[in-house]
Amino acid sequence: MARVSQEHLDARRRQIMDGAALCFARNGFHATSMQDVLKEVGLSAGAVYRYFSGKEELIHAIVTEALDDVGAVYEEAARQVPPALPHELVHRVMREVQGLRPGLRDEGGRPVFGRLMVQVWTETLRDPALAVAIQDGFDRICATWVAIVEGYQEAGVMPAEADVEAVARTMIAAVQGFIAQQTLFRDVPAEALQAGLWGLMSMREVS
Amino acid sequence: MARVSQEHLDARRRQIMDGAALCFARNGFHATSMQDVLKEVGLSAGAVYRYFSGKEELIHAIVTEALDDVGAVYEEAARQVPPALPHELVHRVMREVQGLRPGLRDEGGRPVFGRLMVQVWTETLRDPALAVAIQDGFDRICATWVAIVEGYQEAGVMPAEADVEAVARTMIAAVQGFIAQQTLFRDVPAEALQAGLWGLMSMREVS
Repeated sequence: MARVSQEHLDARRRQIMDGAALCFARNGFHATSMQDVLKEVGLSAGAVYRYFSGKEELIHAIVTEALDDVGAVYEEAARQVPPALPHELVHRVMREVQGLRPGLRDEGGRPVFGRLMVQVWTETLRDPALAVAIQDGFDRICATWVAIVEGYQEAGVMPAEADVEAVARTMIAAVQGFIAQQTLFRDVPAEALQAGLWGLMSMREVS
Repeated sequence: MARVSQEHLDARRRQIMDGAALCFARNGFHATSMQDVLKEVGLSAGAVYRYFSGKEELIHAIVTEALDDVGAVYEEAARQVPPALPHELVHRVMREVQGLRPGLRDEGGRPVFGRLMVQVWTETLRDPALAVAIQDGFDRICATWVAIVEGYQEAGVMPAEADVEAVARTMIAAVQGFIAQQTLFRDVPAEALQAGLWGLMSMREVS
């Protein structure tokens, strides 16, 4: 049997994960069978089970990778001194994360990230291992946001008495909620989060 | 047969909706049967089907009521001139909404609103009627937030050039995301959203 290059193995793994993610985003975790995944990726059971033991392992791999992707993009953004202001930073990070997995788009060309996110949250309520994975991912992103907010304080654009962890949680909440809106509601302008954060940050006589 | 008072009918309806909401929050919509709901509320099938034709109608009634509750609390908050600042307003509204349905708490006394919300979002991806209901609820809350943000502008605490609809969407996103965090993650401080919004609103030299 011919030896298979690492590059080939990685490409196959990518192909399977993207296909499975599209199935999950479309029909949900429970209504998607491994047969559906095989059909989507156009590979045999033998080829797919070589990489993943089943649906559960696929879900965990997809979620862990997505959280790693988002975490890495925030960490890159945090390296800027002083960090970009919240409205610019969030806008840039969301665009970069969407660009990372060009395969994860539905038939209409829309990114499926939000549909996956919303469904992962529901799954998390009943899957303790998934709950641990998303808690770890959240903790990592929150720690990065804390460093960014400390950067604002060092640059003098945020008061020293602001609760850095609370600001970090609030920024993440705004992004989570906005992606949920884009997934659930019609006609959500892509720039709304950026413009809305700017409005909030521009309030006067607040303290 | 004795005539039944409207009060009695309302109380029964309340009892059924709360029991069903607790079942749905605990086990999800698909894993909950009407038998589970009957057991939870301790009523006969005849008594329950008098009010609701089945699970679907129950889900819609619960979601519509929850959105009405949230919408009404925001509308009340919007009547204040000038409106309370975002961090105070959000904190107050979240506490009031939780207080509206004292029956909607799990065995540990925690409100089940967040667990319901997250699961409704997933359900919405596959239920067009539910999608219409939550779009209507969102539009109403968004219109109220627009009025509040216009109140900030009239009071001179927010720049006239801020995009009021974008600020409205962002405020709702922050609340949605924060409730998701409280539902999904450990140790989320209840005051974090209030403190985090204050931090954002207090940024300097932003424009």
